Amino acid sequence: MSTRTGGRSRLRVYSVRDGAFSQRLDELATEEPLEIRLEAGGKTVPLAVTMRTPGDDYELVAGYLYSEGVVQSRADLPGLSHCIDPTVDAEQRHNIVNARLRPGLTADLRRLDRHVFQSSACGVCGKASLEQLETRACPAPVLGRPVPYEVVLELPAKLRAAQGLFAATGGLHAAGLFSAAGELLAAREDVGRHNAVDKLVGWALLNDRLPLSDQILLVSGRASFEILQKAYTAGLPLVCAVSAPSSLAVDLARRFGVTLVGFLREGRFNVYAGRERVLLPGDAGGRR
Amino acid sequence: MSTRTGGRSRLRVYSVRDGAFSQRLDELATEEPLEIRLEAGGKTVPLAVTMRTPGDDYELVAGYLYSEGVVQSRADLPGLSHCIDPTVDAEQRHNIVNARLRPGLTADLRRLDRHVFQSSACGVCGKASLEQLETRACPAPVLGRPVPYEVVLELPAKLRAAQGLFAATGGLHAAGLFSAAGELLAAREDVGRHNAVDKLVGWALLNDRLPLSDQILLVSGRASFEILQKAYTAGLPLVCAVSAPSSLAVDLARRFGVTLVGFLREGRFNVYAGRERVLLPGDAGGRR
Repeated sequence: MSTRTGGRSRLRVYSVRDGAFSQRLDELATEEPLEIRLEAGGKTVPLAVTMRTPGDDYELVAGYLYSEGVVQSRADLPGLSHCIDPTVDAEQRHNIVNARLRPGLTADLRRLDRHVFQSSACGVCGKASLEQLETRACPAPVLGRPVPYEVVLELPAKLRAAQGLFAATGGLHAAGLFSAAGELLAAREDVGRHNAVDKLVGWALLNDRLPLSDQILLVSGRASFEILQKAYTAGLPLVCAVSAPSSLAVDLARRFGVTLVGFLREGRFNVYAGRERVLLPGDAGGRR
Repeated sequence: MSTRTGGRSRLRVYSVRDGAFSQRLDELATEEPLEIRLEAGGKTVPLAVTMRTPGDDYELVAGYLYSEGVVQSRADLPGLSHCIDPTVDAEQRHNIVNARLRPGLTADLRRLDRHVFQSSACGVCGKASLEQLETRACPAPVLGRPVPYEVVLELPAKLRAAQGLFAATGGLHAAGLFSAAGELLAAREDVGRHNAVDKLVGWALLNDRLPLSDQILLVSGRASFEILQKAYTAGLPLVCAVSAPSSLAVDLARRFGVTLVGFLREGRFNVYAGRERVLLPGDAGGRR
């Protein structure tokens, strides 16, 4: 039996449960970009960048190239190596894999172009991804005053109540936009997690409601780098997820001043970044 | 409050629960490709293809373009329209959105190139995606004999037992490969759902174990078109998902003879395609 697990990151979080809060260590899944470069016919071309959990990178690249029809067997892929380009930062090299194709095998890169399977990675390490984001002129996340934890706890039930299709099929991701008082302003669903957030941000843009300062985003699943990137560029000061955030999502939130809440379900949640925007149990100024 | 839900599809499934099975109607989330075309400086260029749930397409496109930094406001995007190109099939036209940029606004398409946010859609309607797959020489899914439902029910616990990191963080997708007898052969985890499957298929390719005939794939989340596409091209005859399949995943499974099990959790599951490969309660030849 073959089992290997990728990286994990530990960090201190604020945990709210049963009307009390505590600090504790939490473990997160590591998320880092991986760039796949293809060596064929004497040329090396960047093929795709994906966000992934480090570990088993050669398998990831081999499986991707097989699924996309580029290689059919082990023999088609005589070389898999991490980048040794001296012009690339040491930190980034383990996030670049060169895949060398069997001589004579050529990939229809034009066809693959449309199929590049991932997304908003802006460098080939997490730090570069964050630095790239810094060059964008993004609205600063602003929240008039801290949101009481009771308001946070009530968000998932309000989103579920709006989810006709999700409730019917269990097959959709949902994203909800709330006022700072916890009023649901808009909800969108999609088979794609990022699409549900894109639909919300698009709704706001088409209705001249950007930036989304003083508002709260709730997503039904996990909080990845991309979800946080979309939220940050839209000016959202508080992002909540029903499931876990990734390491890079927390890095982004801490660096850019976004408050990030995870595991918001069953009457509890963790605060991973920006704790000052949530009134925790015992904080002065909470609900009376 | 603004809430709209996308399409849903109804179909008949076999439902196993409490050691009995029944047929019933189930609702699935619709999944279809959407192509985004950009009109800027007198040219129209295809920008990205994403799998999405139809509905709120203009919002999806506007939100995507905003998140990618192409537009900043409503005024940057004077035109959003579904395709009216007479050379495009009527069925496909609602899966193509043209986004017209404000004159003078140019997008750095080269930068976007790396960021194309989606994937293996091979046409701009579900049918075209399936037809494209037909042109690939894929191994036929072969299973020696039907798998007893008791074996299916035991798979999730076996995958969880192998998931060190998932258990620790709750933040990872997992994929497991099993023999037809239910023995776990390999398990992989990743923040990306497709990555976990790519890692498994890559493991098989690098160890000369393809095609994966007579084996079972279990994924911890939903079963999308892409997951089924990866499974089918690797020769897998039986795909199980802990959550719901999408409409297009079921279409693919039915068309290409892959058995698809969904909602495999808490002692129950549904069979969406290829019912003959699972020995249901009461079938002759079950476990003694």
